[in-house]
Amino acid sequence: MTAHGMSESTIRVRYAETDKMGVVYHANYFVWFEVGRTDWLRHRGWTYKEMEAGGVKLPVIGAQCEYLRSATYDEMIVIRTTGVMHSPVRVEFLYEAVKEDGTIGARGSTMHAAVDDNGRPCRLPAQVREVFQ
Amino acid sequence: MTAHGMSESTIRVRYAETDKMGVVYHANYFVWFEVGRTDWLRHRGWTYKEMEAGGVKLPVIGAQCEYLRSATYDEMIVIRTTGVMHSPVRVEFLYEAVKEDGTIGARGSTMHAAVDDNGRPCRLPAQVREVFQ
Amino acid sequence: MTAHGMSESTIRVRYAETDKMGVVYHANYFVWFEVGRTDWLRHRGWTYKEMEAGGVKLPVIGAQCEYLRSATYDEMIVIRTTGVMHSPVRVEFLYEAVKEDGTIGARGSTMHAAVDDNGRPCRLPAQVREVFQ
Amino acid sequence: MTAHGMSESTIRVRYAETDKMGVVYHANYFVWFEVGRTDWLRHRGWTYKEMEAGGVKLPVIGAQCEYLRSATYDEMIVIRTTGVMHSPVRVEFLYEAVKEDGTIGARGSTMHAAVDDNGRPCRLPAQVREVFQ
Repeated sequence: MTAHGMSESTIRVRYAETDKMGVVYHANYFVWFEVGRTDWLRHRGWTYKEMEAGGVKLPVIGAQCEYLRSATYDEMIVIRTTGVMHSPVRVEFLYEAVKEDGTIGARGSTMHAAVDDNGRPCRLPAQVREVFQ
Repeated sequence: MTAHGMSESTIRVRYAETDKMGVVYHANYFVWFEVGRTDWLRHRGWTYKEMEAGGVKLPVIGAQCEYLRSATYDEMIVIRTTGVMHSPVRVEFLYEAVKEDGTIGARGSTMHAAVDDNGRPCRLPAQVREVFQ
Repeated sequence: MTAHGMSESTIRVRYAETDKMGVVYHANYFVWFEVGRTDWLRHRGWTYKEMEAGGVKLPVIGAQCEYLRSATYDEMIVIRTTGVMHSPVRVEFLYEAVKEDGTIGARGSTMHAAVDDNGRPCRLPAQVREVFQ
Repeated sequence: MTAHGMSESTIRVRYAETDKMGVVYHANYFVWFEVGRTDWLRHRGWTYKEMEAGGVKLPVIGAQCEYLRSATYDEMIVIRTTGVMHSPVRVEFLYEAVKEDGTIGARGSTMHAAVDDNGRPCRLPAQVREVFQ
């Protein structure tokens, strides 16, 4: 298992992302986590877009999140992302959603399997494996 | 111009669809309208899914909505949909979102162009044109 | 710990819920799970809406999902929901998303804490605790 | 009628915002427009968040969009927003979604009515009316 570095993505909470409880609807954190891992790859000189164009996708096969403190409308949330390669066909991303006051609002992770254009498991391209090292 | 019939789709408002104002976020009505036109086609013996599988898509090229009375969490909303063919390459759907108390909550429409798998304008298949008559 | 019964909610996959991979975007399962637990409560003679009106909310404090087989546009997905009371202040819901072909597409759970209108932990109303028994 | 200035908001397209057609789902432009008008107010020294905290909301009473060219995953879209005050109780925002290649992808507008905490029409606060001048 190899983990490497951390990237930060800043997200301003949209009105659309809140619900009638007055805070961010829980499922939307998983969208923010997507922004986090996309940026993590980009910061390492690779984009998920290119990877898909090259015939390799990384569908989510597992996702989880713990919610500690709510995020509110118009708040600036920082998503801290770390990538971990478990094997040449499986990677995990770990996330923290940090609130404006510096406290951790949520912690989560997503697990991904590499698949080719036919949906069959495949090895991550060497160039992508390198960014995890 | 040929309009025909009306279909009704019943939608229960999801918590996810509300925002911090305590009512449904305006953009979500366009998702409900999608449900409405999908059902309208289905009620006429055709599905949008089959149409796409057959190589014809109907992307939205225009959309509008007037909001009269808010929809609230857990409310049962009826979407009344009517389809109109403007030409063999262009169709419009008209919608009303009816609240539980029978009042009209919103009125909207979407305009669609038929395109083939390469994104080029194309005529709607004869079978689909028939459902508009 | 007390678990009781199972409810089923049928959801037709919306175009809006798909992504460019051609299948349902992973975060949307958590919205379907919300539909599942809302129906579970309703089938037991209680609604989440009434509970909130009565001053008790059930925010999500944890959520997880394993994705086994993708859901596709226009597919009818059945969400099977079971409720479990861990304590008078904490309940969990367990979910399965069953595909049209009868296979399990995803399995997940959400954990909830009862809070009052000021966001402070509180005991679930006796009437709600009863539906878990 | 008074229009004033223009603000620009840059949005990177999220995977969650695409659909199985491979491009951004049409309803999501209205969420981007929300980002646009929030930034427009902020650039004038006012925030929608403060306005709501001060007891005045601006619900959307009408929305429309024309779609000219699709936005794709990971593309950087610039939302150009202009605000127009029609009366002390009604404002409109006009938007353009500009693609990376500089072409206009979509044009839209939203109409808003000022309402107080009880949902009754009210005049916009003088401070807010000023930002439209």
